[in-house]
Amino acid sequence: MNTIPERLAALRQRMRALGLTHYLVPSGDESLGEYLPPWRQRRQWASGFTGSAGDLLVAIAEGETWLFADGRYHLQAEEELHGSGIGLQKVGAKDALSLAQMLRALAERHGARCAIGFDPLVQQAEAAAALEKDSAARGARLVPIQPNLIDELWQERPAPPATPLRACPLSWTGASMGDKLAALRAALEKQGADAIALVRLDQICWLTNLRASDEIPFTPFFESCLYADRTSVHLFLHSPEQRLPAGFGQDVPGFQAHARPEFLPFLEGLAERRVLIDPERTTAGVLAAAQKGRNVAIVSGESPVETAKAIKNDSELACLRRANLLASAAATRALLWLEEELAAGRKVSERSFKERLEALFAESPGWSGLAFATIAASGEHGAIVHYSGAGDTPLADGRLFLIDAGIHAGGGTTDATRTVAVGQASAEQRRRYTLVLKSHLRAARQVFPEGTPGSALDALARSALWAERMNYDHGTGHGIGAFLSVHEGPFSLAERRRKPGAGHGLRAGMVTTIEPGHYLAGQDGIRIENVYAIRPSGQDSDDGVTWLCFEPLTWIPLDRRLIDAALLEEAERSWIRWYHGQCGEVLGPLLSEAERKALRVLLG
Amino acid sequence: MNTIPERLAALRQRMRALGLTHYLVPSGDESLGEYLPPWRQRRQWASGFTGSAGDLLVAIAEGETWLFADGRYHLQAEEELHGSGIGLQKVGAKDALSLAQMLRALAERHGARCAIGFDPLVQQAEAAAALEKDSAARGARLVPIQPNLIDELWQERPAPPATPLRACPLSWTGASMGDKLAALRAALEKQGADAIALVRLDQICWLTNLRASDEIPFTPFFESCLYADRTSVHLFLHSPEQRLPAGFGQDVPGFQAHARPEFLPFLEGLAERRVLIDPERTTAGVLAAAQKGRNVAIVSGESPVETAKAIKNDSELACLRRANLLASAAATRALLWLEEELAAGRKVSERSFKERLEALFAESPGWSGLAFATIAASGEHGAIVHYSGAGDTPLADGRLFLIDAGIHAGGGTTDATRTVAVGQASAEQRRRYTLVLKSHLRAARQVFPEGTPGSALDALARSALWAERMNYDHGTGHGIGAFLSVHEGPFSLAERRRKPGAGHGLRAGMVTTIEPGHYLAGQDGIRIENVYAIRPSGQDSDDGVTWLCFEPLTWIPLDRRLIDAALLEEAERSWIRWYHGQCGEVLGPLLSEAERKALRVLLG
Repeated sequence: MNTIPERLAALRQRMRALGLTHYLVPSGDESLGEYLPPWRQRRQWASGFTGSAGDLLVAIAEGETWLFADGRYHLQAEEELHGSGIGLQKVGAKDALSLAQMLRALAERHGARCAIGFDPLVQQAEAAAALEKDSAARGARLVPIQPNLIDELWQERPAPPATPLRACPLSWTGASMGDKLAALRAALEKQGADAIALVRLDQICWLTNLRASDEIPFTPFFESCLYADRTSVHLFLHSPEQRLPAGFGQDVPGFQAHARPEFLPFLEGLAERRVLIDPERTTAGVLAAAQKGRNVAIVSGESPVETAKAIKNDSELACLRRANLLASAAATRALLWLEEELAAGRKVSERSFKERLEALFAESPGWSGLAFATIAASGEHGAIVHYSGAGDTPLADGRLFLIDAGIHAGGGTTDATRTVAVGQASAEQRRRYTLVLKSHLRAARQVFPEGTPGSALDALARSALWAERMNYDHGTGHGIGAFLSVHEGPFSLAERRRKPGAGHGLRAGMVTTIEPGHYLAGQDGIRIENVYAIRPSGQDSDDGVTWLCFEPLTWIPLDRRLIDAALLEEAERSWIRWYHGQCGEVLGPLLSEAERKALRVLLG
Repeated sequence: MNTIPERLAALRQRMRALGLTHYLVPSGDESLGEYLPPWRQRRQWASGFTGSAGDLLVAIAEGETWLFADGRYHLQAEEELHGSGIGLQKVGAKDALSLAQMLRALAERHGARCAIGFDPLVQQAEAAAALEKDSAARGARLVPIQPNLIDELWQERPAPPATPLRACPLSWTGASMGDKLAALRAALEKQGADAIALVRLDQICWLTNLRASDEIPFTPFFESCLYADRTSVHLFLHSPEQRLPAGFGQDVPGFQAHARPEFLPFLEGLAERRVLIDPERTTAGVLAAAQKGRNVAIVSGESPVETAKAIKNDSELACLRRANLLASAAATRALLWLEEELAAGRKVSERSFKERLEALFAESPGWSGLAFATIAASGEHGAIVHYSGAGDTPLADGRLFLIDAGIHAGGGTTDATRTVAVGQASAEQRRRYTLVLKSHLRAARQVFPEGTPGSALDALARSALWAERMNYDHGTGHGIGAFLSVHEGPFSLAERRRKPGAGHGLRAGMVTTIEPGHYLAGQDGIRIENVYAIRPSGQDSDDGVTWLCFEPLTWIPLDRRLIDAALLEEAERSWIRWYHGQCGEVLGPLLSEAERKALRVLLG
């Protein structure tokens, strides 16, 4: 069963036995996270598609099996699905259907003859309820199936590791697990609940201050679930005895560790509780288990952990500043090396640059891994927003080179993108780069009142490109964790229609990227991304409003050869001068004498 | 029964007889509109408060009767409630409760002893459902009461007029009632419905192309309800025989007119229909009546009339262009008169300016009334956003004068605000005015892709003021009707959190105001408001995106004495030069020779 068609055939056989016409294999897993541990990559096993997002709908009828991928993955999905017999719905493109639209169309066409199987433990509760309602309205059936059909078929499924977890020091987290639990309990009470069930790993890592080293790619997460109420807190994870640090939880009254499979029976056994379930961040299966308890009331609302985690305390901010400075220094050193190599007439490829950069990253004090797959994209590869290749072809003169990379180091997480010119830049490249830079600065330089929705900053950034009838097909920015996930909720700088979290009001202590771009398919991609902390601007107005601004945490020089100063306002040019001055100051101590000298040349 | 306390005493007697502890007298009426006919002004009859918004909650316990008024009406409500025995909740102020919060608090305090009576025919279906749920969760009862208790007590209630309605010519509407019905039926089918019930008067006027002349203040609306399905359309209004134009509806298959009271029995008698109910724009009473029908399914969704009405066709756009030009000419003539009077050392007051302006408005060809109460606010009155006074004190030197006015004329509706300096303007006034102008231009000059949410334009406008830690406490713009309401949904340029419609994507053919402002309580108010049509910018990009821009319909000169050109970018100054050039061109033919000369001086 090594080819995709073989796997799908086996799956269809099981579906037939169960009377299903369709089976849903979502991209996500039991933790509803972005990155999956190898033993949860069911969609990849069943389809061959390796992207981070894209649900699969397997139909008994062969020609009706579809993968639903968004704009970031259209090209990649096309390649990876080749020969699989799976069709591609390019979500966002004209005439393409989203998964929800397809299910609606199926239900409308086939009505009661349509039986769609799904695993409630890997379905967001909210999405499952919407699907259920949609299907029921059209007479189709949505059939919860346990255990997961892929798990049944997947013979050589990897096993979870048993390596020990680490407890983060208080100097990183700024608050103990006990402190965080106390705040959580107070917040639950306000929401009319006295207990909560969590499956999102970032929330559990943040709450427990625990991290793993090798479990889930690009994150320090460990697979787990958590339940907390007024007097107890229960953590469910793989091999708890071998993995929890010695004495962990002794200072937390009512703490108990359990093997992960005990979570659902535990929830089903609850009694007399008002359990908060975040329907966006909990699975339908967990909700169903909690509902089975005796006199258990479900309170539906956003997890208070999500909002608390987004506001970084001073210790977390210090870690994020330090980590982003270290990553900036490594990226700057890689760019200086690139300049030197090209100046000396030596060839550099995507791969050799990426290896150099990642080697420099790994030298950072406290380095504990990449935060996502490094993108080093030359020319047309830059237009593939999540390009993960790394070719050996030398970077060609006259092409743009886009590098997007981030790491975890010493309690912080980073994410930054630079686009540089290889050889002589054309006037059009300079114009487009400068407009993307203007777009970046429209957001980054803006002062705004506390509580402004992220969507407002998204519109501000886009306005500079809109004026030239240009745009980009992704959000303007996302929250970032403190030694957690590189993409973190609940807010984002994005149009609310596309990202629900974009409506969350911005507050001091939030940390976000700003990353507008411009992409020409088959030609190149431009993106300029920094991480910023949101902080009070230091000047409040008479009416008691707190005014906020962005503090850069990323300090990597911009490519001056790509800046057409005539397209910028003086205030924008002045910001760039200030930024480059700061780059020189903060990076200097982290560079060699030769690098400092080269940096001065680069900064002009 | 001529005093408020007498009226409340009589109401409390009825409440006791019905076993109610509270009775809700909302500001709105059966049509859920902004302006009420005199015979629906129940809240005013029961409380004495004349503002356009503010619900009344009458309690059996005398000290617990409250009016809930927002910031626009705090001062006015305080004055008007004096001696009534009614307390004022200043919604938005610290410690004040909103009606929903008060009802929640009552339910929590009194539980099942709390019986809140309300008239379902004057409650938005959506709001009533939320109230119901909220109260039920706390054990309180929400008791629908029919007929309306105020109507029972209100002896000298005015009667609806019986003056004939007018049918708008096709040259105004661009589409016949038959065309509009056909489109409506197609849209209903798409939403899975085959019938619709309407109570919003703007929707009914738009769909029937009928207008009244003297029924509801500031609008050409007539009180009515409408039901349409695949084969018939039923219009319910006062005195249909006397009021409908001769032959009206003969060309509409299945058209029938009824007396207004027949609407509910008609709905209750429906059978085998899928009726679309817009829960935001229909009352709980109408929803309940439709639900009584045999095999009637309710489809909940936005009324397609609301969306169709927002996209103006070429005839409507032509009417709006013409009406706004005529109103601009009148306003410009009034401003020229003001200049002349002040230059000659004569005194002008808020009242004399307002009278002059309204007299000039009335000279416009096709004039059919004001679209809202003219605001002519000098100095600190300008900071009262809905100031409706008109003092006799002469306008003082060194103060700002804010004029916000609009009319209906020849199939169009208008709305424009100018702020002008009386005498010498201070540097600070010029700075603030110029920043508001910059804010206006940030939105007005922006090119944006089709479907951009109104909230994006709201953020763009505010960004210019935010940069100086300034803001305004109202939306940036609202839709406007074609000889309908001056405030028209479903979209708006506002933060979505505050205005649900702000999320509606903008499309070519929508017509909106842009009206940022800045207010200093006790000092002055600045607002600059134009009406704009949204239209294709004439240059689409390769990727098939339609790019939109704003076409000004308002042509009233800006006060150049208040513009600090140094605070503007060259592109902004150039827009103002272009705008003033256009003002000269389009207004010229509508002015006298002397006025043309004076205008040239004004425009510089």
